[in-house]
Amino acid sequence: MMNQLIDKIKKQNSPIVVGLDPKLNFVPSFIKEKAFKAYGKTNEGVAEAFYQFNKDIIDHIYDEVPAVKPQIAMYEQYGIEGIIAYQKTVNYAKEKGLVVIGDIKRGDISSTAEAYAIGHLGQSNIEGNKERAFKNDFITINPYMGYDTIKPFLDVCKEESKGLFILVKTSNPSSGDFQDLKVGDNYLYEQVAMKVDEWGREHMGQDYSYVGAVVGATYPEVGKKLRKLMPKTYFLVPGYGAQGGKAEDMANYFNEDGLGAIINSSRGVIAAYQKDSYQQFKEEDFALASRQAVLDMKKDLSNAL
Amino acid sequence: MMNQLIDKIKKQNSPIVVGLDPKLNFVPSFIKEKAFKAYGKTNEGVAEAFYQFNKDIIDHIYDEVPAVKPQIAMYEQYGIEGIIAYQKTVNYAKEKGLVVIGDIKRGDISSTAEAYAIGHLGQSNIEGNKERAFKNDFITINPYMGYDTIKPFLDVCKEESKGLFILVKTSNPSSGDFQDLKVGDNYLYEQVAMKVDEWGREHMGQDYSYVGAVVGATYPEVGKKLRKLMPKTYFLVPGYGAQGGKAEDMANYFNEDGLGAIINSSRGVIAAYQKDSYQQFKEEDFALASRQAVLDMKKDLSNAL
Repeated sequence: MMNQLIDKIKKQNSPIVVGLDPKLNFVPSFIKEKAFKAYGKTNEGVAEAFYQFNKDIIDHIYDEVPAVKPQIAMYEQYGIEGIIAYQKTVNYAKEKGLVVIGDIKRGDISSTAEAYAIGHLGQSNIEGNKERAFKNDFITINPYMGYDTIKPFLDVCKEESKGLFILVKTSNPSSGDFQDLKVGDNYLYEQVAMKVDEWGREHMGQDYSYVGAVVGATYPEVGKKLRKLMPKTYFLVPGYGAQGGKAEDMANYFNEDGLGAIINSSRGVIAAYQKDSYQQFKEEDFALASRQAVLDMKKDLSNAL
Repeated sequence: MMNQLIDKIKKQNSPIVVGLDPKLNFVPSFIKEKAFKAYGKTNEGVAEAFYQFNKDIIDHIYDEVPAVKPQIAMYEQYGIEGIIAYQKTVNYAKEKGLVVIGDIKRGDISSTAEAYAIGHLGQSNIEGNKERAFKNDFITINPYMGYDTIKPFLDVCKEESKGLFILVKTSNPSSGDFQDLKVGDNYLYEQVAMKVDEWGREHMGQDYSYVGAVVGATYPEVGKKLRKLMPKTYFLVPGYGAQGGKAEDMANYFNEDGLGAIINSSRGVIAAYQKDSYQQFKEEDFALASRQAVLDMKKDLSNAL
């Protein structure tokens, strides 16, 4: 799956993933009104609104980006109905040929990690009958609990040709609370990075391993350092745009082959129509604004790299 | 909610939480057969089997333990239908007066953490209409991303009188990979513990804060050290029994007031009927075996404390 993601990035010249992280106030009123009319101001109504919103955005960006990254929390917040909208979004994106990175940040002891791995990347075996729950190609996971909580994910990835992005240095302001603690001569995030690199070398695709790392766009100097420390690791880079990550800094996250990173934008793309810079788009044309934001991001990154 | 949990622990003299972490091979055949007959060997069939299994166990233990801890991964593995069984289990346990600790180990940047907090502890606001998704009293969360990813959970807990257990030192064999790294004079888990203690002091119930810590039963010396380091923090202690934690070591996790910890047993209780030591129970009486396992655990802990 990492090979497939890289092929798509090359073909489209687009190291971009769009975060499908809907909030109610991102969704145009005409979509909300229709959904609420059908299902009320309920979790079901929100779920329907989110799905229609995502679908229209996917229809307008699928030929310009290789991947989308739905953030499951935004859906989980609205209970079962919300999670159904997550699942439908994953399936619809797959139908349109997109690579799907489920941003789920799970992590637990081995037997439990195995359950998450099966549910989000693999298939369960019910006395011989196989079932797939969530059809992500990649998921994000949390390393705090150590290797035996990572291994079940590695095993399922190997079996299913799927991949991971493991949290190394996250984009949020307090990411340093623990990640930046000094462990001997290194920072904790470097210690995690070295482990991710090590696990990755045993799980190689063609040029890159299918064990990626999450490295926030908001700490470009760290990005540069980590790029050297883990040359075979693909970076998923959140925090571009709305969170403060700038195009000119993104070169830090790439290798000399022009590969090695995929930059995420969520709000900047999916809520583009609400920004002053895209006020030429009417609310009904919100998905065209999203498409324009993707094209602009491609240009900005291309200039910067 | 922490006060309520402590009251129940005192009244029942039972510092025990039962982990409702079903696996298909824990469920007695007569329950599976009935569920598969109605719904096939599908996710829906498993979900029905899990719910009936849990319900019978809850009916037989609710008067002897203060709390249950369903592990959401075991349900999420079976997709939407599985998560519905999780939700029904939470609701049923609440109906029977149990405190519910949702073992979800979530964690993400602030706006995303807020969504998880709302979905699992709070209520969403859909243009004025309030909805609750999952009615947990407590949840477990992961600290790797730092304070701004914890704060949204603290805020919702304050508003809703609910609580948290934050991962400090986990029970699994590789928990030391990162948690045991030396940070200056301390281990990383101590650094996390000091932060949890600090956050907790701003969120006090009566004698204990409602910001608890997960501290594994498999490292009793660490338990002892952390007990001193964070006197106002309640410990959720997984790893008793099947994972190797022994009754005689459990005193390390308690304060002199006889409080401060709640010990989790999952497999040892819910699959007790499969153990040699409970072979007097027939498969149909699996829930009676679970009740007996709880009574035995109460006695063992009472002797050890």
